Amino acid sequence: MPDNFADRLLAAVRAKRTPACVGIDPVYARLPAAIAEQRDMNDEMDAEAALDATLEFCRQIIRIVAPYVPVVKINSAYFERYYWEGVEGYYELVQEAAERDLIVIGDCKRADIGHSAEMYARAHLADPDFSNLDDFVGPDAVTVNPYFGFDGVKPFIDVAREEGKGVFVLVRTSNESGAAIQDLVGPDGMRFCEAVAKQVAEWARGEGLMGTAGYSCVGAVVGVRDRETAIKLRALLPQSIFLVPGYGAQGAGAADVGACFRSDGTGAIVTASRSIIYAYEDTKYLEMYASEWEKCVEHACKDFVAELARVVPVT
Amino acid sequence: MPDNFADRLLAAVRAKRTPACVGIDPVYARLPAAIAEQRDMNDEMDAEAALDATLEFCRQIIRIVAPYVPVVKINSAYFERYYWEGVEGYYELVQEAAERDLIVIGDCKRADIGHSAEMYARAHLADPDFSNLDDFVGPDAVTVNPYFGFDGVKPFIDVAREEGKGVFVLVRTSNESGAAIQDLVGPDGMRFCEAVAKQVAEWARGEGLMGTAGYSCVGAVVGVRDRETAIKLRALLPQSIFLVPGYGAQGAGAADVGACFRSDGTGAIVTASRSIIYAYEDTKYLEMYASEWEKCVEHACKDFVAELARVVPVT
Repeated sequence: MPDNFADRLLAAVRAKRTPACVGIDPVYARLPAAIAEQRDMNDEMDAEAALDATLEFCRQIIRIVAPYVPVVKINSAYFERYYWEGVEGYYELVQEAAERDLIVIGDCKRADIGHSAEMYARAHLADPDFSNLDDFVGPDAVTVNPYFGFDGVKPFIDVAREEGKGVFVLVRTSNESGAAIQDLVGPDGMRFCEAVAKQVAEWARGEGLMGTAGYSCVGAVVGVRDRETAIKLRALLPQSIFLVPGYGAQGAGAADVGACFRSDGTGAIVTASRSIIYAYEDTKYLEMYASEWEKCVEHACKDFVAELARVVPVT
Repeated sequence: MPDNFADRLLAAVRAKRTPACVGIDPVYARLPAAIAEQRDMNDEMDAEAALDATLEFCRQIIRIVAPYVPVVKINSAYFERYYWEGVEGYYELVQEAAERDLIVIGDCKRADIGHSAEMYARAHLADPDFSNLDDFVGPDAVTVNPYFGFDGVKPFIDVAREEGKGVFVLVRTSNESGAAIQDLVGPDGMRFCEAVAKQVAEWARGEGLMGTAGYSCVGAVVGVRDRETAIKLRALLPQSIFLVPGYGAQGAGAADVGACFRSDGTGAIVTASRSIIYAYEDTKYLEMYASEWEKCVEHACKDFVAELARVVPVT
């Protein structure tokens, strides 16, 4: 039996002494000049060159942040954008991060019903079962969309149970218009995201899913827009680790994020993406390191870890 | 300005005199023996051979059904399951179907926020903007998940407006457990899927989206589990074409499906997947054609069209 994902994640957080996660959402137009030039990138519409440069950037990001954070989250959308070659690059980055002993979250937000959801779970979470991909691993966890109810999530949970992996179900997203759907209020005064949270809590208690520390391998994506919601969802999902996106660029602050943790400092990982990977666009870092973009990223990553440490003491 | 998707879809339905759509969800284990043998398929775990056989099957399906139906829906999950090579195969099938003058729906059920959703919209709906994919087209329409609210859907709608394409937003899915989420009741007695329908109706009325026949290029996926829901959602979404999945194998019957149409016989397309593409497993067809699997599929496709014609007269 493989180790429970929640246990592995908690151990990784303890080892690096931070619940920080770096999100990798690479946009070609924002790549450092040094990388674009090195690849002779004068044509953004040349898919091969643009993808090569993007992957090179991501490999460097993974190398730079690996000593500081326990987890990276790789967003599939930015690779699918380069069609099948981009998809190949996405899986290569998963290997790259795994080889650096990072926990890898595949941020693919998939969902479907029945057999289709099984196919997605095999493609996006399981270790490949094909002979030509024998040395490949799947991500340690994925994000999934709850709209189909339990049918849509169960195949992912089954893979998680069998292979020691994890599932983060979208509960509350960090975007503005998410409220129009997720904050609709039911007759009992409970908002829709809270009703989803209650169901996710039930799924998380399923057989064979709990780790030794009281957390399930079924977690929740909780974008923090206000402290009250974070507190409420934390109470509704006592056994789920939260994946909290949107730190920095999307406006979530350290104080609000603190409410996603239990009082013992466990229970959430916090993701910053753009504020780290594009730190070389930030005058604060630019003034220190000029065109040495890797140093900007490294410094921003260390600052992120330090900021989090102020609100969430990791023991 | 490209033609509006709703107009194109209605014209295709009129031309073939049926709102029938064939769904392509290929599972290797169910492929006809003739195809598996031809490809020397003795190892399901050999990704290349399994994918080759699967794609060959799908090409044949497209060829067989193209004379009878106006639309095919290709489910991305079954191709992603074969990693990047499967994704390449998925796009090749989109070309194949487009070359046979079929309207192609990419059933990818994507959603994310902001820039990530833009990436998905470019990858899954837009015609490719890369020089090496100059001769490729994207699908005519895609399915999207509404959980993120308007942010998650807008990038797809923008591509639809600019390129004469379509978006089908998941409103009510056909699976059993969808009810636990989508049928949650709000304070006004309105179910969650109805609240989503109201929002989709608003999105559908956006500028530049309406065709000449009173339908928007923003449609809705409406899995029919009972007639009342279909009637209610039809009333809430007067300007959206419904994509109705699950005819046959998933249990939706012709009479219930009829409620998804306006009284003039327009307003929906109805998808059958497994009952058509695996018709050679059905004793009814097997007895007629034995191992001639193509004839089983063709006959099942014609039966599907005929059955629909009884409930939905296409003028």
